Amino acid sequence: MKIKRSERLVDMTEYILARPHTLIPLTFFAKRYSSAKSSISEDLGILKKTFQDRGIGLVETVPGASGGAKYMPYILKEDARKFMDEMIEILNNSQRLLPGGYVYMSDIFGDPEKLRYLGRIIATQYLNQKVDAVLTVATRGVPIAQAVSTYLNVPLVIARHDSNITEGSTVNVNYMSGSSKKIKRMTISKRSLDEGSNVIIVDDFIHGGGTINGLSSLIKEFDCNLVGSTFFAEGASDKERDFGDYTSLVKMENQPNDEMIITEGNYDEKIFGSGK
Amino acid sequence: MKIKRSERLVDMTEYILARPHTLIPLTFFAKRYSSAKSSISEDLGILKKTFQDRGIGLVETVPGASGGAKYMPYILKEDARKFMDEMIEILNNSQRLLPGGYVYMSDIFGDPEKLRYLGRIIATQYLNQKVDAVLTVATRGVPIAQAVSTYLNVPLVIARHDSNITEGSTVNVNYMSGSSKKIKRMTISKRSLDEGSNVIIVDDFIHGGGTINGLSSLIKEFDCNLVGSTFFAEGASDKERDFGDYTSLVKMENQPNDEMIITEGNYDEKIFGSGK
Repeated sequence: MKIKRSERLVDMTEYILARPHTLIPLTFFAKRYSSAKSSISEDLGILKKTFQDRGIGLVETVPGASGGAKYMPYILKEDARKFMDEMIEILNNSQRLLPGGYVYMSDIFGDPEKLRYLGRIIATQYLNQKVDAVLTVATRGVPIAQAVSTYLNVPLVIARHDSNITEGSTVNVNYMSGSSKKIKRMTISKRSLDEGSNVIIVDDFIHGGGTINGLSSLIKEFDCNLVGSTFFAEGASDKERDFGDYTSLVKMENQPNDEMIITEGNYDEKIFGSGK
Repeated sequence: MKIKRSERLVDMTEYILARPHTLIPLTFFAKRYSSAKSSISEDLGILKKTFQDRGIGLVETVPGASGGAKYMPYILKEDARKFMDEMIEILNNSQRLLPGGYVYMSDIFGDPEKLRYLGRIIATQYLNQKVDAVLTVATRGVPIAQAVSTYLNVPLVIARHDSNITEGSTVNVNYMSGSSKKIKRMTISKRSLDEGSNVIIVDDFIHGGGTINGLSSLIKEFDCNLVGSTFFAEGASDKERDFGDYTSLVKMENQPNDEMIITEGNYDEKIFGSGK
């Protein structure tokens, strides 16, 4: 039975949103809706225009017999900025201050709506790059990393500090914790990454750079390529940093008397700098 | 500027999918598209029908001046069964067997598409119940729990075995590990749950019942209500179990010579038993 355009548009929107960065053939939709390919092409044109007008993402259409459509989620600079400005205001609430100059953030990393925004913002950074996996380390970074992996539609790989019997053979690296100057260990399952994969690191916090060094070593051990590193927060540091390029959404600066000021990280330049 | 129906349908579908279990007022859409409420009502009727025909979820429309629409994601029994049958076949691949009778599953908990299915299946179970939070324990259960929290659109709360300085004041409970018979500790931030919340437990694995006992104790400490517990896998046990009602998607049975057979859990009865 032929399906009406209105119903096609609704189902097609749902279908394509659930499968980011995946080329869906025109023939698939034509069959699914018992409709002519020319009608499907028109539908995709409407999706493409609406997604663009509303800042939902890019619908790339590939012409020809083997053609189709690919949805690539992004967020507009102004939407990202609006969200991040609100986020910074929320984080600067003095009730979030914890002893020792820490800030309570666990609720943010458990809030589905905020995770959707954070995932879209970070996915925008890697929109046009080949990414095969998102790598993070247990536990606090997992929700953000998972949100990013959802929008890029690539596997999430979680390194751990303790190796677990359910991981099988593991690859372990030792690294120097940047803040405590202690030797720590990081481990992931041997099966979790393919050689030559393009990997991004996503984590909640970067301070001394220990975690990024540990994760980078793991990436090297697997002969993978580090495409980029993005952190929700960076801590201010008076030391020279030697862990290379990274992106941060917010910056946390300790004040005298254990207060904390949270300001914008370098995301505007790093993610939107190229005029996206 | 008035927006055409075709574009309204695409944007409305995206908007509503990103906000499950949230009543979106008719007036909001009317303003967003500079369209009459009667047109928006018709649009929502098309969404409702298509979502139902395609097994995407329920669009509940609330009539009247303060009315609107609420999207409640579910999965049809046959779609869930098809996915779970494939999942069981994947898990029974002998290359997944690890020494000691364990099965490698980390890739599944990092696969965005599988997590979408698992999240929808478990969210279907709690479709008509009041749920305020999803509770899990670090680390392996986090991705599935997060997928469920996304579809129910409620906060994800992660208990940990070690307390972390960035959590602030914590509530800790001791519990007996079901398998190793050791006393373990579980902790969550005091701020992470409101008194009286309705909580579901979602985790990767239930065997001796220690984790569910620990998480249940935490729920009691917060004067919250346990609505239900769902696990990806349950281990077969020859002991009497005393940890009450739970749902499992798959069941793992150790065989002699360290092999493992994975079969269907009790999800069919527990989730779809009522004829959903």
